[in-house]
Amino acid sequence: MNTNSNSHTNKPEIILTGDRATGPLHLGHYVGSLKQRVSLQHIHDQTILVADMQGLTDNAHNPSKVSSNILNVVADYLAVGIDPTKTTICLQSQLPVLAELTMFYSNLVSIARLERNPTVKSEIQNKEFGRSIPAGFLTYPISQAADITAFNATLVPVGDDQLPMLEQTNEIVRKVNSLAGKPILNECRPLLSNASRLPSTDGKSKMSKSMGNAINLGATEKEIRAAVKSMYTDPNHLRIEDPGKVEGNIVFTYLDAFHTDTNYVSQLKEHYQRGGLGDGQTKKVLEECLQEMLRPIRERRADLLDDKAQLIEILRNGTQVSRERTQKVLFDVKDVFGLNII
Amino acid sequence: MNTNSNSHTNKPEIILTGDRATGPLHLGHYVGSLKQRVSLQHIHDQTILVADMQGLTDNAHNPSKVSSNILNVVADYLAVGIDPTKTTICLQSQLPVLAELTMFYSNLVSIARLERNPTVKSEIQNKEFGRSIPAGFLTYPISQAADITAFNATLVPVGDDQLPMLEQTNEIVRKVNSLAGKPILNECRPLLSNASRLPSTDGKSKMSKSMGNAINLGATEKEIRAAVKSMYTDPNHLRIEDPGKVEGNIVFTYLDAFHTDTNYVSQLKEHYQRGGLGDGQTKKVLEECLQEMLRPIRERRADLLDDKAQLIEILRNGTQVSRERTQKVLFDVKDVFGLNII
Repeated sequence: MNTNSNSHTNKPEIILTGDRATGPLHLGHYVGSLKQRVSLQHIHDQTILVADMQGLTDNAHNPSKVSSNILNVVADYLAVGIDPTKTTICLQSQLPVLAELTMFYSNLVSIARLERNPTVKSEIQNKEFGRSIPAGFLTYPISQAADITAFNATLVPVGDDQLPMLEQTNEIVRKVNSLAGKPILNECRPLLSNASRLPSTDGKSKMSKSMGNAINLGATEKEIRAAVKSMYTDPNHLRIEDPGKVEGNIVFTYLDAFHTDTNYVSQLKEHYQRGGLGDGQTKKVLEECLQEMLRPIRERRADLLDDKAQLIEILRNGTQVSRERTQKVLFDVKDVFGLNII
Repeated sequence: MNTNSNSHTNKPEIILTGDRATGPLHLGHYVGSLKQRVSLQHIHDQTILVADMQGLTDNAHNPSKVSSNILNVVADYLAVGIDPTKTTICLQSQLPVLAELTMFYSNLVSIARLERNPTVKSEIQNKEFGRSIPAGFLTYPISQAADITAFNATLVPVGDDQLPMLEQTNEIVRKVNSLAGKPILNECRPLLSNASRLPSTDGKSKMSKSMGNAINLGATEKEIRAAVKSMYTDPNHLRIEDPGKVEGNIVFTYLDAFHTDTNYVSQLKEHYQRGGLGDGQTKKVLEECLQEMLRPIRERRADLLDDKAQLIEILRNGTQVSRERTQKVLFDVKDVFGLNII
């Protein structure tokens, strides 16, 4: 029995988190999750899953988009300070337990329930799948439940748009526990990030590599400069001497997110609002701040990617640890279905 | 590359077949598949999958219906003459490769495609699932494709109602091969049974234990007697001297299926049709025939179930062989998706 206690270590919470390996990570990930993970690893028992299988649910016909990004994502993690001696980093496709649990849980969730999931619903709309949605995509909340429960996670860092996924997981947990007649799986709680979502550089759509509106952690000096230069500001701020708007001005949103001197940013905002401060100047401040922050990350990332064997070794070790660790849950779930026969 | 040649042995075809472990096997299975498997094992490389996971797709809330029947089904196999030194018998839930392949294939099949599958469509109607159909049930054709391709089966014995399942499998095979740019999976061909489907004893519905209209391979003398006694004949054959109908008369259908002396059965039919032969007499002939045929099967079955450790050992060995054998296909499929990284 494993109810809300962490038998694996004596750290207070078991955290499972992860990323779809469909592209290198960017500043949105940094603000939204990576920074938080770097702190959490000192307090809790944290596992990060590189979700290559989930990445394939809508990229099966372009699989290199996933496979070519697995080591990039691991390098991103290490470059920002995630420490593989404190955080377990593992690869989803190398954990058959996750596929096995997904098969069991699939029998406990109806198609109608999956179609009602608001997160999946809006993703289906965005991707314009219609009824041609791949089965693996519609059912990926079940696979996420397998990920979370395999580690018996108690805490899952999510954005508020992901809350329906955790509800789905906890529904499955309750069904399994009810069939078992005892609590063999933990219900998980969301850990909502206190950082608000970082907007894209164009201020319009979701940040993504394909949209060219994100600054990757490995961005070159030139890419950073270009990205800041093209950043959305106040379209009505035509002359330097005019008063400008700070709300919705992406340069200031980024300064709030990344500049360490909040007083200085406040002064800049006031100056901009009363007029006399040009976008060129605010962008220069932001660019310097981002260049300074990203330079060491980019350098560490490049060094890491120069030694792929080491990255593979780290991922292999974390995956091996995870493989052993998740066996017990599979055994318990199989027991519920009476299948520990041979 | 493994195209339509059997690298595992030098037998001409790789056969995959199996049964959902949701009840003991009955005379319908005997006529429809078991007899054929006993012959096929001498010629081909045959694997029988005890499909416990598939059994759970519509029994997850009553799992003992599956778990309690696994060893019964294995005993049924051995009792009718399936020889574990000639046929590999393995347990689906103990082969993680099948779950892993299912996850990959799920990304290549749309929900719309699954909903168009005529076999699944009619099963959904029969089970009155509506939209509350479990995800695992709607997607089980994908899991079947995983079973078939994991063994690189070239020949799959099926009833004609199962042909759409093989079409689905071959569609997946073609998609994987197209992504791979070379044929890594075999397309399979159906092996249609030349025996027509054995009707239920009531002549009305599909044979099933729950309907009480099937004669199990382990049926007692008394159960056989009662089943034959209540068998559907010709409802208009009211007096012995009246002419009777042979078509749709289940007693004659069973005599055709099981009596070894076909001349004698022809004589009985003629006699019955011209009048003067009572249902009591024809049933007596059938009962004797079934008692004689089922006695040794029942006895072997009981002996086998008396030594569960031996049954478990047979299933464990077959599963271990299958586990090793299916690794190559998983490796090849993972390669298609670029995931043999660590």
